[in-house]
Amino acid sequence: MELLKQKIREHGIVVSDTVLKVDSFLNHQLDPELILEIGKEIANRFKNDGVTKVLTIEASGIAVALAAAMELKVPVVFAKKNKPSTLQGQIYSALVHSFTKNEDVTISVSANYLKPSDRVLIIDDFLAMGAASKGLVEIVRQSKARLVGIGIVIEKGFQSGGQELRNQGIRVESLVTVKSLASGQIEFC
Amino acid sequence: MELLKQKIREHGIVVSDTVLKVDSFLNHQLDPELILEIGKEIANRFKNDGVTKVLTIEASGIAVALAAAMELKVPVVFAKKNKPSTLQGQIYSALVHSFTKNEDVTISVSANYLKPSDRVLIIDDFLAMGAASKGLVEIVRQSKARLVGIGIVIEKGFQSGGQELRNQGIRVESLVTVKSLASGQIEFC
Repeated sequence: MELLKQKIREHGIVVSDTVLKVDSFLNHQLDPELILEIGKEIANRFKNDGVTKVLTIEASGIAVALAAAMELKVPVVFAKKNKPSTLQGQIYSALVHSFTKNEDVTISVSANYLKPSDRVLIIDDFLAMGAASKGLVEIVRQSKARLVGIGIVIEKGFQSGGQELRNQGIRVESLVTVKSLASGQIEFC
Repeated sequence: MELLKQKIREHGIVVSDTVLKVDSFLNHQLDPELILEIGKEIANRFKNDGVTKVLTIEASGIAVALAAAMELKVPVVFAKKNKPSTLQGQIYSALVHSFTKNEDVTISVSANYLKPSDRVLIIDDFLAMGAASKGLVEIVRQSKARLVGIGIVIEKGFQSGGQELRNQGIRVESLVTVKSLASGQIEFC
């Protein structure tokens, strides 16, 4: 997705060989116009797959998931971190390690919102080691819904998450794949 | 907003005299069509106020804030909870008590995304005791930006947050105000 590459080239900040900051348009400040285009592009790649629900994880997945769900005309469900007291009844959950915050969090989804009849598209902003995506895949499995695939905004191709998920036979669509961040340079695949 | 009242009547769950669950369309599962309408309505109320930025807090404010920002054609900034390692440089922050999670969290916004020249519209899903909104107001003050007002999806009129904010001279627009949840009944103002 050329528009996204351009935005990353202009506004992305290479913090280290593994960390790319896109705070100014994707996960702290949001550029609504770009988010809409990203949502449309992800929706477009899965438009013939009968998606009935978009699943993401709070917080930075929500905007992109919503934009895609508007296009697909299906609800979004976002997994919650650290189960709040208002989340009751049967729950699907998984343990996810956050590398940015360096902590383990349990993510949860109410069983009310994922049914065996659902066809689920997982969406997230980043795919690196794949911790969040794997947690969401685990939740889909618990719900017995059908996993249609995973839509990712930025994949770090030099980390193993994408390959591991694809090795499980999961369809992973990344709008942009970063090949390397070495020497402060952003190189796309 | 009649559409929203109807949705709350049909799908809202009164958990107690003070807790209204709207998990099925606003803060766990999201109904994109409704979220868009909510965003449009909030945007409409502030369309002549020269808003340059929408400010919200992760996670459940993001969807509505994005929808309003799409309409106003301005960026969204969402305050982060528990400062992640990727948030660097000058930061505005405030301490917020979460009544649902029963814990204090520090919310933070990078100084890069709120400038003294900004005219800020704060948006959140709920207004009860006003903890989150007051935290966001504090962050706007630190940034020296101009606070245009606060747009809320559901205000609990029987709790003091709204009144306290209005007493400070802040314009608070709530799409729906719940007067009472007593005896399991939802009564609107």
